[in-house]
Amino acid sequence: MTLKQIGEFGFIKKVSRGCLIRPQHIIKSIGDDAAAFTTDLEEISLITTDLLVERIHFLRHAISGFELGYKSLAVNLSDIAAMGGTAREAFVSIAIPEDCALDYLDAIYDGMKDLAHRFDVNILGGDTTGSKVDLIINVAVHGTIASDEMMCRDAARPGDIIYSTGFLGDSKAGLHLILNKLPADSENLRRLIRAHLQPEPHLLEGRFLAQQPGIRAAIDTSDGLSSDLGHIIEQSGVGAILFADQIPISGELRSFCAQHKFDPVEYALSGGEDYTLICTMSPDKADAAAHNFQKCFKRPLFPMGKIREKKGLEIVYPDNSSTAIISTGWNHFKGE
Amino acid sequence: MTLKQIGEFGFIKKVSRGCLIRPQHIIKSIGDDAAAFTTDLEEISLITTDLLVERIHFLRHAISGFELGYKSLAVNLSDIAAMGGTAREAFVSIAIPEDCALDYLDAIYDGMKDLAHRFDVNILGGDTTGSKVDLIINVAVHGTIASDEMMCRDAARPGDIIYSTGFLGDSKAGLHLILNKLPADSENLRRLIRAHLQPEPHLLEGRFLAQQPGIRAAIDTSDGLSSDLGHIIEQSGVGAILFADQIPISGELRSFCAQHKFDPVEYALSGGEDYTLICTMSPDKADAAAHNFQKCFKRPLFPMGKIREKKGLEIVYPDNSSTAIISTGWNHFKGE
Repeated sequence: MTLKQIGEFGFIKKVSRGCLIRPQHIIKSIGDDAAAFTTDLEEISLITTDLLVERIHFLRHAISGFELGYKSLAVNLSDIAAMGGTAREAFVSIAIPEDCALDYLDAIYDGMKDLAHRFDVNILGGDTTGSKVDLIINVAVHGTIASDEMMCRDAARPGDIIYSTGFLGDSKAGLHLILNKLPADSENLRRLIRAHLQPEPHLLEGRFLAQQPGIRAAIDTSDGLSSDLGHIIEQSGVGAILFADQIPISGELRSFCAQHKFDPVEYALSGGEDYTLICTMSPDKADAAAHNFQKCFKRPLFPMGKIREKKGLEIVYPDNSSTAIISTGWNHFKGE
Repeated sequence: MTLKQIGEFGFIKKVSRGCLIRPQHIIKSIGDDAAAFTTDLEEISLITTDLLVERIHFLRHAISGFELGYKSLAVNLSDIAAMGGTAREAFVSIAIPEDCALDYLDAIYDGMKDLAHRFDVNILGGDTTGSKVDLIINVAVHGTIASDEMMCRDAARPGDIIYSTGFLGDSKAGLHLILNKLPADSENLRRLIRAHLQPEPHLLEGRFLAQQPGIRAAIDTSDGLSSDLGHIIEQSGVGAILFADQIPISGELRSFCAQHKFDPVEYALSGGEDYTLICTMSPDKADAAAHNFQKCFKRPLFPMGKIREKKGLEIVYPDNSSTAIISTGWNHFKGE
């Protein structure tokens, strides 16, 4: 069976199955001019959107349909996580080139639905159309949060401790393995590739952080630690210092970097697409929050630096040498 | 100045100006991981999204940046109109190929902002990225509506009168002129082209219809009358009869069709992208609603047929001959 045989409306019917998993509050799902739903009183609505374009964000031959669908939703859930919110409804726009097999498309929706089910998110609508060459997926996600719990980028204050909810740099290593077609012949390497292809959105971690008394600012690591932390300090009007030996580097990344003679700290700083959360915490309440995090998630909330008044971002190395960084994360159009 | 010189974040800063025009209820606009806003109590949230892809939906050399920006928002506002809602917040994802000039991009946002200002819509967020070949724009719009006023596709009942809020087929004629590079050397022809490039979203008309006591089902004409009315009758489990001589054809389309020996009724049925609203009204309340519409908008609400129990769509011509239609509107992938 091909896409041409089933047509646009047949395709929509096919992929719509299993999209509505939380029917409460939903008035209209896929099939009308717009989706319609109610939100609870006293809740703030959050909306985020991300566009994935073939040959820019992914290579079709190097990512399975399942992984692509999973990732295109995951990057949006990560944005809701960074605000501390609960993800609710997803809207999927897809532009499909003629040479894209129906099996691959089915797998895209399987990957999305798999992640959506895990986080109780409805796929509530979207748009389906053609494309000349590249496969294109835009996902928009609606989430909610209590008005007094929202985490923003502009709330960091001098003295705050800077944390990450997980390891940094793994995704960049995974991408290196994929792009250079290196054999993933160990569980370590497969984990790095998985970090790139199937990042875990830290929604539960975001909810946890949003409820800590000492929480200040937060962002997710989509462009790289230096660039993402850069957004926090710029929007908060402060600076930051990071301790290189505290930046959380996984054992997998350490051995990958040792083998290839790469600097793991540089990988963490410039990597991007890790989708952990970076947050800053009031110093008097930070220890308690980190302790509770460990208890709740059975892994550490990694402290790695401090917010200070002096503008800019500085990395201090164990030998007390230091580097001032402007930004080395990903910037579309500049490509750096 | 080029896009490469100002970079992703410079570009976002540049186009963000004038995006927030209705700051009430807005907690976070462009610049954080997600936009955040509140909605009024007892209001339903509506979300719709549309993806426009170069060489599928538009040819860059044949549409100005302003028109492209305008249209990419207009098609979404039209979906909110079809539900009877008020459009509130727009989210713009754009993937930009390297050969796309900064002036053209500025004009895209000018076109969007122009329309957004007219309908009091904020541009509240989005995503900006690169593309290898094609310019891609996805817009998602959040709107609201009182819970007892929403118009859906599935509410038509036998006996209902079918109306259109405007002329049908003009957009297809405009597209014909553009694709065949015919000279637009009269105001008539320029109007047809404008109908295609800058369709008017019928938001006020949608609000009006939603408040009429006799309103039943509604949809906007994006794929063509036969296809769009087809969605109403299919989802309502009914059929419809259209009277060919009542289908609203503009004077401009009549003279265009006379000159090119095209059938204007066929243009209206299969055209698409007119973005008028098609609605069905309870017969006992239809006349009063049409009368009020004329008073309010200084132009007619065009009656053109009836809903009936017998399934399918039938067109009756003035000589009493008739044609049964399955669907002749646009279907991506099938291309018909």
